[in-house]
Amino acid sequence: MKLLLWLSYLGTDFCGYQIQKDKRTVQGELNTAAKCLFGFDCDVTGCSRTDSGVHANTFCCTVAKKGENGLVTDIEAHRIPRALSAHLPPDISVFDAVWVDDDFHPRYDVKYKEYVYRICNASVRDPFEEGRSWYIPRVITDKDVENMSKAASFFVGEHDFSAFMAQGSNVQSTVRNVTYASVEREGDVITFKVAANGFLYNMVRIMMGTLVYVAQGKIEPCRIKEIIESRDRSMAGTTAPAHGLYLNKVVY
Amino acid sequence: MKLLLWLSYLGTDFCGYQIQKDKRTVQGELNTAAKCLFGFDCDVTGCSRTDSGVHANTFCCTVAKKGENGLVTDIEAHRIPRALSAHLPPDISVFDAVWVDDDFHPRYDVKYKEYVYRICNASVRDPFEEGRSWYIPRVITDKDVENMSKAASFFVGEHDFSAFMAQGSNVQSTVRNVTYASVEREGDVITFKVAANGFLYNMVRIMMGTLVYVAQGKIEPCRIKEIIESRDRSMAGTTAPAHGLYLNKVVY
Repeated sequence: MKLLLWLSYLGTDFCGYQIQKDKRTVQGELNTAAKCLFGFDCDVTGCSRTDSGVHANTFCCTVAKKGENGLVTDIEAHRIPRALSAHLPPDISVFDAVWVDDDFHPRYDVKYKEYVYRICNASVRDPFEEGRSWYIPRVITDKDVENMSKAASFFVGEHDFSAFMAQGSNVQSTVRNVTYASVEREGDVITFKVAANGFLYNMVRIMMGTLVYVAQGKIEPCRIKEIIESRDRSMAGTTAPAHGLYLNKVVY
Repeated sequence: MKLLLWLSYLGTDFCGYQIQKDKRTVQGELNTAAKCLFGFDCDVTGCSRTDSGVHANTFCCTVAKKGENGLVTDIEAHRIPRALSAHLPPDISVFDAVWVDDDFHPRYDVKYKEYVYRICNASVRDPFEEGRSWYIPRVITDKDVENMSKAASFFVGEHDFSAFMAQGSNVQSTVRNVTYASVEREGDVITFKVAANGFLYNMVRIMMGTLVYVAQGKIEPCRIKEIIESRDRSMAGTTAPAHGLYLNKVVY
């Protein structure tokens, strides 16, 4: 058996999830904490590789003894979240831990993941939103949000999302199945929510950048269909900044 | 005429509102920004002196030319928030500016101010709440919140709040009029809201610490009345940490 951890982290001060030499990463902190708690080196495998600055309300990873398929500990699963969090910095927190089979894979076994992207749309910056949303001062009206929402609906379904993938990415298939996609406003915050069985590199951020073009009248909502079909990155909008993006749900 | 600014700030990286030599303060940043924008030294006078780590969703201050009662500028009032915010760091933002009479005083003319104090009550820390609420892991039940709310109701009215003032404070009168006081829970966050015509030093934080004693069964809700009447600081609870406190409303 290995451990499946459910955690959240504020991405601001991390160089992304994945471990890198001499950089502060989420995986690096989890490795250190797991070693402190269990007393041996561990393999920590995440459900995704979030970029520098990207946040997670929910993130999953498995923990096994280094080089093995599982781990053995006397600590009861329900005690692990607090015990592990005690060895973690304040910007990562483990809120649940369960035992899973040795062959469980936190990335390949995902049914779907949900990301949210937050925009702060106000005439001046909100200090409490700094690093937690994309600040856009130019007015986005209710009608604009409606257009963004309409445009987002074209993402739903199984499509080749090459147009929404960072150039130079190398993947076997660029086809993904988007389960739902919506845009809503609450006060100054506009939230784009999207779920899929998998995401290409920068996919949500390029979708967001494209939806902002829609809000600004640069792209008609119904043109999203053509952009998808073009498979041409240059047809889509800019890549929205990392700090507005949150991995929000992981469903197995 | 002088300018009345409405601003918000994230208190985390400030040594409080009031200017201090070689320390990063809100007033210090406002002084610098005002000088950049208007081209002359200014007197910035705040509605309150928040402590290090305390936040403001709403804070007011007036700006006049240094040593004078008002200031003259060609910049229209509605342009000032963005113009001034451009000279401010991301943790302060000016969201409104209006002209007021020379004799207006941002502290003495306050009808009432509202503070909120946020507690995060969950089995593990929430990374997104770090520095923005008081983390209390021990379970606070709905019944406990009800008791806190009942206890808070005893604060309402005109009372001598000496028992809720940091020792060593020096003020002419320790009588304040509390307009309303309530405690509510939403998810993991418990919010204490209190409004008064003025607050003694650390008053809200001592009230909060006392209400947490109520939640923990150390103090019966109805004993708040006695504690107020005792005028004895040692009868009240601990001083809650600064980083859960927000100046939320200022009414003139």
